[in-house]
Amino acid sequence: MEPSSLRAAYPVLREIAYLNAGTCGPVAEAAADAARAELHVATDDGRWMPYFERMIDLQARQRAAYAARVGASPDDVALTTSTSEGIVRVLAGLDLGPEDEIITSDEEHPGLMGPLGHLARRLLTHVRIVPFDQLAEAVGPATKLVACSHVSWVNGQVAPAALREVADSGIPVLLDGAQGAGAIPVDVNELGCTFYAAAGQKWLGGPVGTGLLYVDPQWHERLPSIGPTYLNLKDPGAGLDAEQHVDARRHDASALSAEASAFAVAAHEAIDATIGWPAAYERSATLAQRLADELATRGRKVAPRGRTTLVSWVEEDPAAFTQRALAHRVVVRDLPGWPYVRASVGAWNDESDLERLLALIA
Amino acid sequence: MEPSSLRAAYPVLREIAYLNAGTCGPVAEAAADAARAELHVATDDGRWMPYFERMIDLQARQRAAYAARVGASPDDVALTTSTSEGIVRVLAGLDLGPEDEIITSDEEHPGLMGPLGHLARRLLTHVRIVPFDQLAEAVGPATKLVACSHVSWVNGQVAPAALREVADSGIPVLLDGAQGAGAIPVDVNELGCTFYAAAGQKWLGGPVGTGLLYVDPQWHERLPSIGPTYLNLKDPGAGLDAEQHVDARRHDASALSAEASAFAVAAHEAIDATIGWPAAYERSATLAQRLADELATRGRKVAPRGRTTLVSWVEEDPAAFTQRALAHRVVVRDLPGWPYVRASVGAWNDESDLERLLALIA
Repeated sequence: MEPSSLRAAYPVLREIAYLNAGTCGPVAEAAADAARAELHVATDDGRWMPYFERMIDLQARQRAAYAARVGASPDDVALTTSTSEGIVRVLAGLDLGPEDEIITSDEEHPGLMGPLGHLARRLLTHVRIVPFDQLAEAVGPATKLVACSHVSWVNGQVAPAALREVADSGIPVLLDGAQGAGAIPVDVNELGCTFYAAAGQKWLGGPVGTGLLYVDPQWHERLPSIGPTYLNLKDPGAGLDAEQHVDARRHDASALSAEASAFAVAAHEAIDATIGWPAAYERSATLAQRLADELATRGRKVAPRGRTTLVSWVEEDPAAFTQRALAHRVVVRDLPGWPYVRASVGAWNDESDLERLLALIA
Repeated sequence: MEPSSLRAAYPVLREIAYLNAGTCGPVAEAAADAARAELHVATDDGRWMPYFERMIDLQARQRAAYAARVGASPDDVALTTSTSEGIVRVLAGLDLGPEDEIITSDEEHPGLMGPLGHLARRLLTHVRIVPFDQLAEAVGPATKLVACSHVSWVNGQVAPAALREVADSGIPVLLDGAQGAGAIPVDVNELGCTFYAAAGQKWLGGPVGTGLLYVDPQWHERLPSIGPTYLNLKDPGAGLDAEQHVDARRHDASALSAEASAFAVAAHEAIDATIGWPAAYERSATLAQRLADELATRGRKVAPRGRTTLVSWVEEDPAAFTQRALAHRVVVRDLPGWPYVRASVGAWNDESDLERLLALIA
């Protein structure tokens, strides 16, 4: 398939210049069909052993798909319900106290800041906020964790490469990969991160209520579960003595329906089985860069960015611009507290989507 | 609607004597339709503000439905992904240590035993296991929590009424209501329990990945969240200072799709808007008792039970019986580690379902 043909898989693009995958990705017709097919089976046949067998098979395929997107072994990838759930599981599992320090940046999402603020209040752990490009330099003797975006949700910048040395030195690094996994090539080994939490409903095009958490295999034993439920247990029938899986399944969400996993798997296939992920990454990064260049040509101040899928630029009234765009069926978003409008550019987009957005720029 | 007409809403009952709602309830056609309708909107219109507005509206309706089923105010009911998630949230939030004791029973589900065993190993909290009918008497000076089934998943017995006095004395009581909510009338005030965790996919007929956690309003401040994510926060834009909702929303699952909530709401409506829940409770309890009586007439030893929806009886080889029943399209289950076959009887069942099961009894 030609990369430009991919957009036909996504019905929303027929009428709407959808540039908002940084919130939720467009839904492929095939992904919704897969969920609907599971619903039919559940309704007609009931939900007993065959349903659970299908559910477990679909979860294995979902885990393999996610693992491929972050360059990990499936054994090291947990299925969560959101990026934030992964973050919470890591923060709750680390044994942090009032003597410890966490370094984070000044452009993090509430999904990271909320759990960090809670930890600071509940365990009196010190959270130090530094500029995004100075995260590695900020590490000191009390630092027990660096927790930050892999790709900034504000502007699309990429976390400093020097974080790899931080992780190599033994200080765990937790990356919020909500704008990473599925958007750009991610290799957790190359990044050297300890934990990578990401979303299923954004760049991976799956349902709300899906996500992934990569855990460095060296940390499986050191990161206790927040409380193992049925699917986290190796031997659920063993009562109080039931043991957790030794791999990342110990951090799996407690329940994930067959229909949700079928949706997630088919969403992944919509790219994997057509243009393939490397071509998708290349196309979206190139389109995003073109948008950034065109905005600059039109006198807009584009926020500093990396080779990612997000393009943010200054508007005098970002909320008003967003509303005007929506009236023209161009979906972008503003970022409360920031002077930007943000466009999310995927491999499913094309020049026509960018032109509809650029036509709104004075 | 006549109660006997309810079964037409559930396609699985056309061919199958489905007696397994204690695992997962039958799916009403209207519930699957509601999920499919949301999938169409997500696919055609994309998932941005209108999707989230619908999602939040559906979650409010889901919370109100769940609250009605346990006799609570919606402010005191969190939306979880499973019974076990609610249990984990309570256990992780209580400040338990090695001096403390938890009382539980010898017929609890792995969804409770797993988290309790984990707590015992991680925090060295002592977990004492006593017979189900002696839970209240077992409470002693070190007891910091009683955690047990409201309705035993093994045999359908109801937790001792004396637990109300335990809760009144200030010792929190956590009820695993997986076989309670939606199966029998539940009133958390009458029960006097502190926490009530239940499932959305069993007697409430919703999707896998839904559930509820009731928290006594006096405990909202005392039970910290395991880590607040976006929907748990009152002011997500406030960074580290973001505060949690004061009500049970602080324990909401981090993400729940519009399609899952639409499914859950329509599943609840399938009874609420037709025969009504009081009639459903009456019908299922009466049918279940009739099944128990017929089994006894046929010389089967029925496990001691309450006026609930579960009927368990001794078979020499419960797994073989279950397989034989499945071959006749009668869905019941065996319980690993117990000598029983268990039938779950809902208001959607009728005499013909019971007869198909009874025909298998020698």
